[in-house]
Amino acid sequence: MSEYKLHCFAESGNAYKVALMLELTGQDWQPLFVDFFHGQTRGDAWRSEVNEQGEVPVLEHGGNTLTQSALILEYLAQQTGQFGPQSEAERRESWRWMLFDNHKFTSYYATLRFLYGLKKTGETDVTTFFRERATAAYRVVDQHLSQTPFMIGGRLTIADLSLAGYVFMPEDTGMQLADFTHIEAWKARIQATPGWKHPYELMPRGPAA
Amino acid sequence: MSEYKLHCFAESGNAYKVALMLELTGQDWQPLFVDFFHGQTRGDAWRSEVNEQGEVPVLEHGGNTLTQSALILEYLAQQTGQFGPQSEAERRESWRWMLFDNHKFTSYYATLRFLYGLKKTGETDVTTFFRERATAAYRVVDQHLSQTPFMIGGRLTIADLSLAGYVFMPEDTGMQLADFTHIEAWKARIQATPGWKHPYELMPRGPAA
Repeated sequence: MSEYKLHCFAESGNAYKVALMLELTGQDWQPLFVDFFHGQTRGDAWRSEVNEQGEVPVLEHGGNTLTQSALILEYLAQQTGQFGPQSEAERRESWRWMLFDNHKFTSYYATLRFLYGLKKTGETDVTTFFRERATAAYRVVDQHLSQTPFMIGGRLTIADLSLAGYVFMPEDTGMQLADFTHIEAWKARIQATPGWKHPYELMPRGPAA
Repeated sequence: MSEYKLHCFAESGNAYKVALMLELTGQDWQPLFVDFFHGQTRGDAWRSEVNEQGEVPVLEHGGNTLTQSALILEYLAQQTGQFGPQSEAERRESWRWMLFDNHKFTSYYATLRFLYGLKKTGETDVTTFFRERATAAYRVVDQHLSQTPFMIGGRLTIADLSLAGYVFMPEDTGMQLADFTHIEAWKARIQATPGWKHPYELMPRGPAA
């Protein structure tokens, strides 16, 4: 039995944040497939037995059950001594960007990609709304990355792994990603990290695939 | 000059989270009005000089400039010794709920309230979408509060102050808030805390008011 068990599915960029951290730090881990597309996380059993917040990822380790990707990333940085902040100032900077990620960067983009790229709703007032918000969030991160190779401290950290949750997802979202040149260069730097894998290589895919 | 200066405006529930924390802990603080409704946070000057993420709240204290409400709440709990977690387990629980708040509870509700209650767009596909998502997030918190008087530790903490950012805002959002009986009872407990004030009493209102 692996040391770490991650409840996840390949289409979840929030799960990918954790899966990539486990992989890059060389942990003994295994994915446990969650059938999100058939409503598993919305069921009473999931909410009462696994995660009352009704979400993936969920990480099991040493008798602990952890949820929320940013909190799990912080936990794994502490456990492994890798990719974490190295000072109180860096700790605050990493939380500042992980919060921006949860509130806007991942949140708006992931919803757009779910509707437009996976559910294939076509262009609607809702996808237009989310694309505008995602674009504004991308501009903030692109501007930040115009001045630094990674989000904090000049090296890969959990702040990058959080923001990178959905940026490698292949589905079309109608956004012109090539316009965000600094984000594209940062993606290439992350992909060049030894051990990097694509989300669809790291976690099991559901029947939707 | 006050010890704490908070860049804010009364209609911002994210700013209210911090303003209420400063007030309940008895700090010497002053609000600095931000003209959000005329685009101040979206301007180049704001982004280059105050907050590259283009948001309020921003807190100035002792030469530090802090952004992101959850991170500011954690900072103030450390500075004041009040309303913070009292163990590592409580610290993780508080972050778990502050992340859920940033991603869903505040985020969906605040956007719905901005569109439907402030901009008065009327019912659109976008407001319907956000109301469904906000309702799902409210159900998660209501269920949690069916088992405990406050979010963590049986007492008022920064997790409650984060989630309570928008729950006292008076604008109609088309949600039947009375249905969330445990949230309503929790709101009453927060309002009963000595020193509690409504957001519109704590911070300056813009010309929209």
